[in-house]
Amino acid sequence: MSAEERLVVLGLTLPAAGAPAATYTNAVRTGNLLYLAGKAPRVHDGELPRGKLGREFSVDDGYRFARSAGMELLAVARGALGSLDHVVRVVEVQGFVNATDDFEDHANVLNGCSGLLVEIFGDRGVHARSVLGANSLRAGIPVIVKAILEVEPGSFHSGG
Amino acid sequence: MSAEERLVVLGLTLPAAGAPAATYTNAVRTGNLLYLAGKAPRVHDGELPRGKLGREFSVDDGYRFARSAGMELLAVARGALGSLDHVVRVVEVQGFVNATDDFEDHANVLNGCSGLLVEIFGDRGVHARSVLGANSLRAGIPVIVKAILEVEPGSFHSGG
Amino acid sequence: MSAEERLVVLGLTLPAAGAPAATYTNAVRTGNLLYLAGKAPRVHDGELPRGKLGREFSVDDGYRFARSAGMELLAVARGALGSLDHVVRVVEVQGFVNATDDFEDHANVLNGCSGLLVEIFGDRGVHARSVLGANSLRAGIPVIVKAILEVEPGSFHSGG
Repeated sequence: MSAEERLVVLGLTLPAAGAPAATYTNAVRTGNLLYLAGKAPRVHDGELPRGKLGREFSVDDGYRFARSAGMELLAVARGALGSLDHVVRVVEVQGFVNATDDFEDHANVLNGCSGLLVEIFGDRGVHARSVLGANSLRAGIPVIVKAILEVEPGSFHSGG
Repeated sequence: MSAEERLVVLGLTLPAAGAPAATYTNAVRTGNLLYLAGKAPRVHDGELPRGKLGREFSVDDGYRFARSAGMELLAVARGALGSLDHVVRVVEVQGFVNATDDFEDHANVLNGCSGLLVEIFGDRGVHARSVLGANSLRAGIPVIVKAILEVEPGSFHSGG
Repeated sequence: MSAEERLVVLGLTLPAAGAPAATYTNAVRTGNLLYLAGKAPRVHDGELPRGKLGREFSVDDGYRFARSAGMELLAVARGALGSLDHVVRVVEVQGFVNATDDFEDHANVLNGCSGLLVEIFGDRGVHARSVLGANSLRAGIPVIVKAILEVEPGSFHSGG
């Protein structure tokens, strides 16, 4: 089953990719690699979540935020490539968790994004990964995730 | 106008690239990618700035530090390539902002670097980006920026 | 002398690569690049070290942790490639140091890993580098290091 078919089967609807937060672009292709900018969770009710893991937010909240940021990354990738079926594999994911000094469950938070990528891309969604606790993130966002994808030659449309 | 010509028009003079802070090098090329090490703002009056955004330093200070770190990155790239005109495009920028727990303006800080890169390289300077708040950085530096550039084949001289 | 020969001369025995901490893999190859997931220091006496640089741990401790994380990265690379002699060069290293707000010796901590890589790979082990202070890391680990290697074509066995 293709990635786009899996989205349909899983009942997932990608958001429109959010605009970059500043003077940069969401996606840059070089060779067969597509570099995606760090993305926040989707806006709900017009507002981004704001707060820290270990204080305002639980690990379950963080898992959902990371999954939501993953949806944003997929939306950016689809916008840049025309279709997620042009993704050859997910190469690397890096997560930043806005957390208290004694927070220790970063891995379980980022699993929200990693799990989504495996649901959509299967074995080709399994990636190298790193995660760290930031003591602050832009606009107080609780989780930001960035990724590098390997893509098919010639499949880049736009940096969105 | 080429990148080197824009530097002249903008009246910008690149510093000599600072030496690596430890047992590594400023630039490594692999294929058409040039990986640049994380760089601090330029030394002024023989001293690196020291302190946190949100405490010792304002967002405007941080913007200037990020721009200054961007100048260092350009200096390293020129040293490695012989000329900035061998840069095909800026692929990715990552910024670390030494900040207080409640700092939220990381994006505006990193814009100091991103804006510089667009001034110098035009559309080819627009990059994928991520930024996070570190609770400490080496030597108390307020901002560190790293970057990955796509470069012309055969244009690598030295890791500096 | 090859990298595998240097390991023998230096009396270093690589550990079995630790399993990924969550739903990801230790190594992904794309083109001639091998992306390694962030690795913690080796387990001693069945337990990972837990604590912060500048509080529970000294810079010397951190140096040893970073070197130990470097051994883990080498173990992953050997597992993925069959032999470290398939490594063409170390491209980039990024370190996360779990540190107090006023810690400033991140560079000396990460030198534990950088020095190991140069011992093993010689000039081909010298890399671009960045390091930052995280205010928390998964499971309270004091140091995590990730890396990108350039590898020989066709030398990838498994993501471990």
